[in-house]
Amino acid sequence: MAELRKDQLRQSWITISDKRGKRPTDFSRSDSQSRDGASVGPCAFCHGFEHVNGHETFAIRDGDQDDAPDWRVRVIKNKYPAVSMDDGELKLEGEGTVYGACRLPGFGSHEVIIETPNHQLTLPELPASHIAEVLKAYQARINFFQSDSRFKFCQVFKNRGNRAGASMTHSHSQLIALPVIAHNRMCELDGSQDYYNKHKRCILCDVVKHDTQLQRSRLIDENEHFVTIAPYAPMYPYEIWLLPKRHASNYETINEDEIQAMARMLKLTLQKIDQAFRYPPYNYTLQTSPLGEGNFNLAHYHWYLDIAPHLTTLGGFEMGSGCYINPVAPEKAAEFLRNCNVGSS
Amino acid sequence: MAELRKDQLRQSWITISDKRGKRPTDFSRSDSQSRDGASVGPCAFCHGFEHVNGHETFAIRDGDQDDAPDWRVRVIKNKYPAVSMDDGELKLEGEGTVYGACRLPGFGSHEVIIETPNHQLTLPELPASHIAEVLKAYQARINFFQSDSRFKFCQVFKNRGNRAGASMTHSHSQLIALPVIAHNRMCELDGSQDYYNKHKRCILCDVVKHDTQLQRSRLIDENEHFVTIAPYAPMYPYEIWLLPKRHASNYETINEDEIQAMARMLKLTLQKIDQAFRYPPYNYTLQTSPLGEGNFNLAHYHWYLDIAPHLTTLGGFEMGSGCYINPVAPEKAAEFLRNCNVGSS
Repeated sequence: MAELRKDQLRQSWITISDKRGKRPTDFSRSDSQSRDGASVGPCAFCHGFEHVNGHETFAIRDGDQDDAPDWRVRVIKNKYPAVSMDDGELKLEGEGTVYGACRLPGFGSHEVIIETPNHQLTLPELPASHIAEVLKAYQARINFFQSDSRFKFCQVFKNRGNRAGASMTHSHSQLIALPVIAHNRMCELDGSQDYYNKHKRCILCDVVKHDTQLQRSRLIDENEHFVTIAPYAPMYPYEIWLLPKRHASNYETINEDEIQAMARMLKLTLQKIDQAFRYPPYNYTLQTSPLGEGNFNLAHYHWYLDIAPHLTTLGGFEMGSGCYINPVAPEKAAEFLRNCNVGSS
Repeated sequence: MAELRKDQLRQSWITISDKRGKRPTDFSRSDSQSRDGASVGPCAFCHGFEHVNGHETFAIRDGDQDDAPDWRVRVIKNKYPAVSMDDGELKLEGEGTVYGACRLPGFGSHEVIIETPNHQLTLPELPASHIAEVLKAYQARINFFQSDSRFKFCQVFKNRGNRAGASMTHSHSQLIALPVIAHNRMCELDGSQDYYNKHKRCILCDVVKHDTQLQRSRLIDENEHFVTIAPYAPMYPYEIWLLPKRHASNYETINEDEIQAMARMLKLTLQKIDQAFRYPPYNYTLQTSPLGEGNFNLAHYHWYLDIAPHLTTLGGFEMGSGCYINPVAPEKAAEFLRNCNVGSS
C-alpha cells in the first residue's frame, strides 16, 4: 500500500509508492532515453485504444458518449499511480514521538491528461484552440477535486522527454491530488503572505507591473491577459513564468477569454523553447493555490505556470542546499527568447 | 560578474554564474555521459599536475612544502567557480520594491577537494585512514570559513558520475561557501527548532534512539560513533543518512576518534551502494549548521551526511510541489542494504 510520510526535519511530505516499486536490480542505468517523439506509435494513449485505459474521468469531444473514440482531450487514471483513492481511511498515524502523526495512507488521485489522440503531434503543434481545451481539462479536474474536501492540494504538471521524467512520448500532462499541501506550495504561500503583510500588495501583481512597466529587460512576451517573463531569481537556465495579468490565486477561476489568451501564449512559448533548444526535454508546473475554502480567492497568492527546459544537470550542491546555480542571467535569457521568431500562432 | 539573487516568493537564494555562462546553442543534448571512472587519465587533478590548478588552499601531505606533489588530499579553488571572493562589496541591493534587497554580488568560495592523487581509485576504494583525511579536509575548510565573518553558510558535497553533476571522473568532493544561508538549511533549522520547542529534545538524537533501540527496521549499520539509516520519509530510493551518535550541530567539532569511525562507516556505505547498483552516479551532502556564532553549538540541530544514489528521474511533480515520489519504502531499502555483504574495511 502506498503511503504519505512527513519528514519533520525538512517539513515536507513525500510519497512512498510501492505500486511503482522496484527491486534494486530493476533500476536501469541506461542513458539512451532522451529520444523525444521518436516513438512511432500507436500507443495506449492513441485514438482507438480507449478500452486499454479504463474509464475516462473527463473528456472533451463532439459526441456525448463516455469513452467513445471521438475525443480531442481525454483524462484517465494513471495506470501506475503514485497514489490512489482506494488506499484506506484518511487517518494520521505515526511511530513513536519522532515520527508521530507523520503517516497517511497513500490516498490521492493520479491522472493523465492526454492532450491529443494524435501520436505524432506535440502540444505546441496543436492549434491554440485545441491547447485551450487542454487548459479547460486542467480547470475541470481541479474543480472536481475542489468539490471533495478530502483533497487539500492539486499539482498539474507536464513532463516532456524521458530526461524530464516522461515515460510516454504521446503528448500528455498529469495531475496528482493529495490530502496534504506539498512543501513548495507552503513556502510560496509563506513568501507571498510575508510580502503582502509588508506592502499590502500581491507579490506577483507587483512582478507583472515591474517587469512590463518599469524595467522590461526580463519581459519575453505579452498579450491582452498574460505575460511571460524570465523570473528575477530563476532556478533553471531559460526558466519562464507565464503569469496572468488579472490577480487570482486559483487557476480554476480562469475565464474563457483568458483560457484562449493563455493557450496562445503557451503555444508561442513552447514553440520558442523547441526552436531554441531543438526539442529539449522540459517540464511545466501549474503553481496554484491549494484546495479548500481557506485557500480560495487569496489576496496574496497569484497562480502562474512555471516552464523549465532541462539543459543542465543538478548535483549535490542543489540537493543539499536548495540553492541553484544558474549559468544564464534572466535578462540574457529573456532577450534571447524575446527575439526568437517562430511565426504567428 | 556573478550574482546572488533572492526569490521573495519562494524565499530562496539562487546563484547566477556568468562565468559558467553558455549561449543557448552550447547546451549539450548528449546523454552518453554516465561513464563512471571510464576516463583513463591523467587529468588536472592527478599527481604531477599541481601547477595546472594554482595554489592549494589546504593539503594533507608528509612534507611541508605547499603545492608540492607529495600530497594525499588537496584542496584547490574550482577552475569554473559558481562564486568567487573577487566579486565586489557585500552590499544588499535590488530593483524597485518587488526585487528590493534581493541582490548580492556573487561573493563566495567554490573549492574542490581532490580525494586522492590516483586517477584510478574511487573514494570507497581508498583505505579508511585515507578517507579520514578527506573528512579532515572538510573540517579544516569549514573552520577556515568560520573564521571569516562574511561567510554565513558552507555546503560540502560530492557528485559522482556525470548524471549526478560531476564533470571530472577523478575522485573529488566540492565545497561552496556563501554569505547567505541557503533555503534547505533554513527549512531544516525551522523544523528542528519546532521539534525542540515541542519536545525539548533534538530531533535527530531522537531519530538515532528510535531507529537503533525501539524499531530497528530502518537501521542499516552501526559502529561506536555512527549509524546509517534509511530515513523515515526519504526523498530518493535508497537514500541513506549517516548520523553521528553524539549530538553536535556543527560538523567541524568532530573529534579524531569520530573521524576514524565516520571514515569506516562512509567506506562501508559507499561500497554497499557500488555493489548494489553497479557503480551508480550518486551524491552526498554534508548537512551542518550555518556559519557564525549564532549557529554554533545549537541544541536543536544535528549534523548528518545525506547520501543518495541517482536511480530515478525527477519530473514536474517534484519540481512544482517539492513532494518526491519514492518507489522504495525505507524499511525495504534498509533491509536490502543491511544484508549487503561487502567484506570488512
